[in-house]
Amino acid sequence: MAPTDLRLDYAYCTADALGGVHGVARQRAVELSQSFIRVHAELERGRQEGRLGFWELPQTPAAELTAIKSQAERLRGLADNLVVLGIGGSALGATAVDMALNGIWRHSLPRRQDGMRLYVADNSDPRMFTSLLEGLDLKRTAFNVISKSGSTAETAAQFMVALDRLEQALGPEEARRRLVLTTDPVAGSLRPLATLQGFPSLPVPPNVGGRYSVLSAVGLLPLACAGHDIDALLAGAGRMAARCLAPEMTANPAYLFAALAVDFWRRGRNILVMMPYVSDLFGLAQWFAQLWAESLGKALNLKGETVNLGQTPVAAVGATDQHSQLQLYMEGPHDKLICFITLDNYGCDLEIPSLYPELDAMAYLGGRSLAELIQAEAKATAAALADQGRPSLSLRLPLLDEDALGQVIFLLEAATVAAGALLGIDPLDQPGVELSKKLTYGLMGRPGFDSFRQRLEELDLGQRFVL
Amino acid sequence: MAPTDLRLDYAYCTADALGGVHGVARQRAVELSQSFIRVHAELERGRQEGRLGFWELPQTPAAELTAIKSQAERLRGLADNLVVLGIGGSALGATAVDMALNGIWRHSLPRRQDGMRLYVADNSDPRMFTSLLEGLDLKRTAFNVISKSGSTAETAAQFMVALDRLEQALGPEEARRRLVLTTDPVAGSLRPLATLQGFPSLPVPPNVGGRYSVLSAVGLLPLACAGHDIDALLAGAGRMAARCLAPEMTANPAYLFAALAVDFWRRGRNILVMMPYVSDLFGLAQWFAQLWAESLGKALNLKGETVNLGQTPVAAVGATDQHSQLQLYMEGPHDKLICFITLDNYGCDLEIPSLYPELDAMAYLGGRSLAELIQAEAKATAAALADQGRPSLSLRLPLLDEDALGQVIFLLEAATVAAGALLGIDPLDQPGVELSKKLTYGLMGRPGFDSFRQRLEELDLGQRFVL
Repeated sequence: MAPTDLRLDYAYCTADALGGVHGVARQRAVELSQSFIRVHAELERGRQEGRLGFWELPQTPAAELTAIKSQAERLRGLADNLVVLGIGGSALGATAVDMALNGIWRHSLPRRQDGMRLYVADNSDPRMFTSLLEGLDLKRTAFNVISKSGSTAETAAQFMVALDRLEQALGPEEARRRLVLTTDPVAGSLRPLATLQGFPSLPVPPNVGGRYSVLSAVGLLPLACAGHDIDALLAGAGRMAARCLAPEMTANPAYLFAALAVDFWRRGRNILVMMPYVSDLFGLAQWFAQLWAESLGKALNLKGETVNLGQTPVAAVGATDQHSQLQLYMEGPHDKLICFITLDNYGCDLEIPSLYPELDAMAYLGGRSLAELIQAEAKATAAALADQGRPSLSLRLPLLDEDALGQVIFLLEAATVAAGALLGIDPLDQPGVELSKKLTYGLMGRPGFDSFRQRLEELDLGQRFVL
Repeated sequence: MAPTDLRLDYAYCTADALGGVHGVARQRAVELSQSFIRVHAELERGRQEGRLGFWELPQTPAAELTAIKSQAERLRGLADNLVVLGIGGSALGATAVDMALNGIWRHSLPRRQDGMRLYVADNSDPRMFTSLLEGLDLKRTAFNVISKSGSTAETAAQFMVALDRLEQALGPEEARRRLVLTTDPVAGSLRPLATLQGFPSLPVPPNVGGRYSVLSAVGLLPLACAGHDIDALLAGAGRMAARCLAPEMTANPAYLFAALAVDFWRRGRNILVMMPYVSDLFGLAQWFAQLWAESLGKALNLKGETVNLGQTPVAAVGATDQHSQLQLYMEGPHDKLICFITLDNYGCDLEIPSLYPELDAMAYLGGRSLAELIQAEAKATAAALADQGRPSLSLRLPLLDEDALGQVIFLLEAATVAAGALLGIDPLDQPGVELSKKLTYGLMGRPGFDSFRQRLEELDLGQRFVL
């Protein structure tokens, strides 16, 4: 194991730490590890049949990476801002990595890496989009429209509004140069625009779904525009992919993560808190929340039986949420598993001066540092939870860079499909979101969706229950 | 009811919409409403005995408001940036209101209201705090240190680092003018600094806890600095406070909210999703998450019996999270109640041009607007969830301004203490966070906490379970 490798610390999941009622006892661990014989065979088949497209992304051919990088270089020459028009899996990955590396204040304060400022406009909210279109200098702004199918209503609407504005500001020809489409290489309604109308474009591999797409052009183009090292991101992911090929549960970090999450879920812990002790990793926790929720929240299993399962992810931040959520985590129902993410090295530090040695509440801090404090808090919180029989695991990153992010991203993707296999559901589809989309089409007057408008009127109870 | 009043729509909680298994049937509603005879009497006693200090904040005396406003005016004359050093209840309220009114891009793009830029540094993370201290022009920056007790480690550490930097940049005298302390008027370790060292200061009412303090100086000073109308905020809160005095459950929006949340919680829905269909209200959802989690997540009831109860709040955003969490909400376990927040009027809109009438996925959007789209999505999602037996309620705001925010803030605070009374627990304390704090003191070498350092070593299993 290299010093730059992510470590998974699961001590506070075990019966050794939590006792037999709450912890995973050795016998239970043996039973769990046996179920991975089936899981491993299924994932192996999935990889061979090309269903797990994300698994191959760390080995993206050099020619494809060159296309992404040269597109990024072209945009960086044209503009200072890149607005991503995409939602869900087309938005969360780029936000996660850019926030991690350039910080939560990246839009207003100097960033750590030189590149375009990334604005991810992942909502159909007119307040948010108006302030963006009116606040940015459109002459120094490019757009990346990301939708695999091209039919996402929010993105399609924003695309038309943005194109219209760009044409007014720059003329039709220059507007087209500023608007890159990332979409399916063949299917979908954005592809004809790319081919017939001459928009620059990049492909999303057909066998990579939105929430598994951050290491494809979906995430890589915006991240390259923002100045991040996409080769290092893929290299970290590739090293983790190799670790996640181990057949043994106890040697495979993805299997271990999946085993613990599923076992605690089966024993009543229907909530999984993802809680990095790094403000800049809140975006990563939100990215994970989509991955876990949409992949594992399913009505039917693979046999077609109704199961209605799925563990609810919650994004939190340490130490901040010790002052918001910890009271509930310590004393509430035994309904949670917590996954911490910690840094061995924060990459910078601030010494705390001894200004008030006469005040008890301040004296002990003098001469220590903020990194020491947050690391002590992470350790203390995990221990306090364990003391109350509350399980947690920790993903320990050596430091926060592209390589480490690639590792943690791949680990969580692999853990998600392993958990899906363990639960016997399909972690790659999302049938449950269709009804809401169709009702929206009905309300917006899309031809062919009249019956859904009627269905909505039937469901509407008017003002009878309004206070 | 005035046209500017918040409406609570609970149709999709009823058996009329969801059927008898999932919905609240009429008989059950009658039983619930009877339990509010006791709840109302308890809250009435709490108000009379001065335990519910937040209830009086809308009637803050004019002299106190003048002190806050003149402090804000002074700071606005000195600086462009206000950094809040506070965490949890000292941070979340100001962030919620400033984000709501100035938008998620408020740090980099033009804001809707003229005032200081607010940076809320609510973590002991050296990465976040270094980028802030090095990125801001300290000569144009003021600080508001907020801690009722003064003993919060994160805030105390940041305070000493910031004061040291300010003194280096501006000299000791000018540094003191830039650093306002908001703390207990008598007790706590920041108070002697204010009195002896001459820092300007404002009081937190002793009977107002952190998570209920946004309408005190804790929230009002930063919000006045940022240019928001704090009188309108309090006026909206005051109108809602009057509505929340009604003894009848069905006439009192706080009681109705509490009744529904508690009833669904008792029937297995241990997750409450707060999901505004407004990007700028994500901060409000996070503020609510602290309020609900820390108030209701309790090990013991008022009789001292072990109950380990509490519903876990989740902050989400529509339409964004339709592409992240909706799959789980539609198909996962019946373990959630969802509270939407919607706007009747977004205050701005963007028309969608008809650029591609030949493309099915785009044609229907042409000529409609982004506000129409997001409103259709909110309606469609609530209906789709109801179709699957999934309960939701909606807080409908007429528009997004200080008055509406005051209403929704007060409603949720009143609902929280009503839920606490209904559950028979104390919604005002937070005993569960002490152990983690003491273990941190032990690790940081604070005198008197050696035994906690030893306890932590006992809990540590070292490298035995690390992969």
